[in-house]
Amino acid sequence: MGETSQLQKVYNQSTYKLANHGPRNVHVLKEAFQNVAGDLESDIYGKGRIIEDFQEKMAALLGKEDAVFFPSGTMAQQIALRIWCDEKGIKKVAYHPLSHLEIHEEDGLKELHGIETVLLADRDRVIDLDDVMKMGDGIAAVLLELPQREIGGQLPSFETLEQISQYCREQHIRLHLDGARLLEVLPYYRKSAAEVSALFDSVYLSLYKGIGGIAGAILAGDRDFIQQSKVWKRRHGGDLISLYPYIVSADYYFDMRAHKMGQYFEAAKEVAALFNSCYGITSLPLFPVSNMFHVHFSYPKDQMEQVLANLGQEVEVGITGRLTMVDEHSCYFEMSMGDQYSEIPKELVESLFERLDQSMKRHFDQ
Amino acid sequence: MGETSQLQKVYNQSTYKLANHGPRNVHVLKEAFQNVAGDLESDIYGKGRIIEDFQEKMAALLGKEDAVFFPSGTMAQQIALRIWCDEKGIKKVAYHPLSHLEIHEEDGLKELHGIETVLLADRDRVIDLDDVMKMGDGIAAVLLELPQREIGGQLPSFETLEQISQYCREQHIRLHLDGARLLEVLPYYRKSAAEVSALFDSVYLSLYKGIGGIAGAILAGDRDFIQQSKVWKRRHGGDLISLYPYIVSADYYFDMRAHKMGQYFEAAKEVAALFNSCYGITSLPLFPVSNMFHVHFSYPKDQMEQVLANLGQEVEVGITGRLTMVDEHSCYFEMSMGDQYSEIPKELVESLFERLDQSMKRHFDQ
Repeated sequence: MGETSQLQKVYNQSTYKLANHGPRNVHVLKEAFQNVAGDLESDIYGKGRIIEDFQEKMAALLGKEDAVFFPSGTMAQQIALRIWCDEKGIKKVAYHPLSHLEIHEEDGLKELHGIETVLLADRDRVIDLDDVMKMGDGIAAVLLELPQREIGGQLPSFETLEQISQYCREQHIRLHLDGARLLEVLPYYRKSAAEVSALFDSVYLSLYKGIGGIAGAILAGDRDFIQQSKVWKRRHGGDLISLYPYIVSADYYFDMRAHKMGQYFEAAKEVAALFNSCYGITSLPLFPVSNMFHVHFSYPKDQMEQVLANLGQEVEVGITGRLTMVDEHSCYFEMSMGDQYSEIPKELVESLFERLDQSMKRHFDQ
Repeated sequence: MGETSQLQKVYNQSTYKLANHGPRNVHVLKEAFQNVAGDLESDIYGKGRIIEDFQEKMAALLGKEDAVFFPSGTMAQQIALRIWCDEKGIKKVAYHPLSHLEIHEEDGLKELHGIETVLLADRDRVIDLDDVMKMGDGIAAVLLELPQREIGGQLPSFETLEQISQYCREQHIRLHLDGARLLEVLPYYRKSAAEVSALFDSVYLSLYKGIGGIAGAILAGDRDFIQQSKVWKRRHGGDLISLYPYIVSADYYFDMRAHKMGQYFEAAKEVAALFNSCYGITSLPLFPVSNMFHVHFSYPKDQMEQVLANLGQEVEVGITGRLTMVDEHSCYFEMSMGDQYSEIPKELVESLFERLDQSMKRHFDQ
């Protein structure tokens, strides 16, 4: 895995962590299976109660006719867009320049499905109605990601979503929701998952982000769409003989955490405010609209790593294990609030941010 | 899952079972994880000791430079053939008419990769050197499946394999091994996995057949090939954040069963002979060459289901839960010998086949 950085080591050793639910280790699986009977039968190639029950539960949550469990969102979303392209006989879709499909999937959509893409909006803002209206003809589907992860988890207003949805329906353009973090945005919108999903023809939901499962995804839509997606799931090599290790854990952690998204959202706003109160640190967005945000430093990555690693040796609360360079002069990291924040004694949080502010001033205020 | 047949019900309730390792249920996972420490870190997108160690172990087993873990063989094999096609700039491969890719994958190879196929040999026999020499020009790769599952697990001789391998190397045609059941054929060939794999440029091995894991596959080859396969794995949506539920169980059951393939092979020969001693029953092949074979009845499926369901209510050993129709007059089922056979008291096996023979005669000998 390459060498572990000093910052990562310090972070790993910290007693408490600001973000996330906890370490990604085998305990996550063991806990989920602890009370599951050994004689519970495996799903077999997409059949069986263990998978069908969960798919029905997710279809009901999302207010769609049907849903199917996929091993990954990468697979689910390429397939959704392929089905909409085939329906229209046009191999072109539109999405944000920082969509997961554009930057994290080795161009699977293009290389496997031969689908061209049109990039909507600028990299540093979310898609609005005007972007969709100006995208030109010959587009089978638009993908919206809520929240837009790579820019700190920003969101359009719900009114904008409604307008884009209405426009796409009028123009017979399919609208797909990259709802990897759909549950995480519901407290901000004050809507149910079904109310947001109703604006979209197809919806993808991740099972290991806010929910904290091991892996896996749900794709939901109407019956015919889901039937087609199962054929493509087999073609992709995603119709595994047994997917239950992911399904059982997704179901377990869904029940544990789906109702806590409001708590994570409040934590995000609180912690973002604490970062913003420190010298030379800004959150993006300034006021989080989900459980996530980015923390930006207007200083070089190597200097910031040193500052955070030094601080980490003096405090009990880990902030982050790694930074990403924006340019020579600035860097950032992603925060996703989860169960761990509520486990930290309040006075430790206060003292952490006091000392972070002091460290920043000591190093950079000249 | 549709209605459970009477035969399936009777089979499920039988105390012992002739074939397989045991039921596919959650216990398979629980046993594999029983002694795994909860703080063992997950693999993360193909990185980490938990996946890298297992890949190295499998590369060593297969005598290849490198190996990669895939969630499914469907994904691994399409990708192997795609890489060989891209290398040669020719989108055509050759394989058996009953290859998994041809009949069980919804044409993923064609629909996702645009690869044409040439079918070698007749449906009822394995590929020989002559088939390969006559297949014509413009073929990037040949896929051989050992054993050829859909015809009862038949095998070419090792000399034929060597000849095909030599011919393909001379002609600069890549040779890929569908070794879903590679370990299962080693006792017959009296060769190591590496000795068989040495005849091939790329090798796929399944982890839930003879080994009995939960799901998953290994693809092995030279370093550059494996590097490319990882890019395609991501494109297919197979580069999951965590694959450890499959890897830990594959490793556990590999260690438990890889050395028992000789025992399963002997059991297959013994049980096939017992079936062949019964009226109106023949095994395919007549003398098994791995742990598997097919059991053919020269009677209609519905009549045979009745005979086997009735017999099942009188004996303690389950033969099969389902039959597949060949035509109006005949049917068959697949046997894969595993751990369960050795658990049956010998006298129960003897009495089972005596009564099966009597039942067959009573119903069909006129």
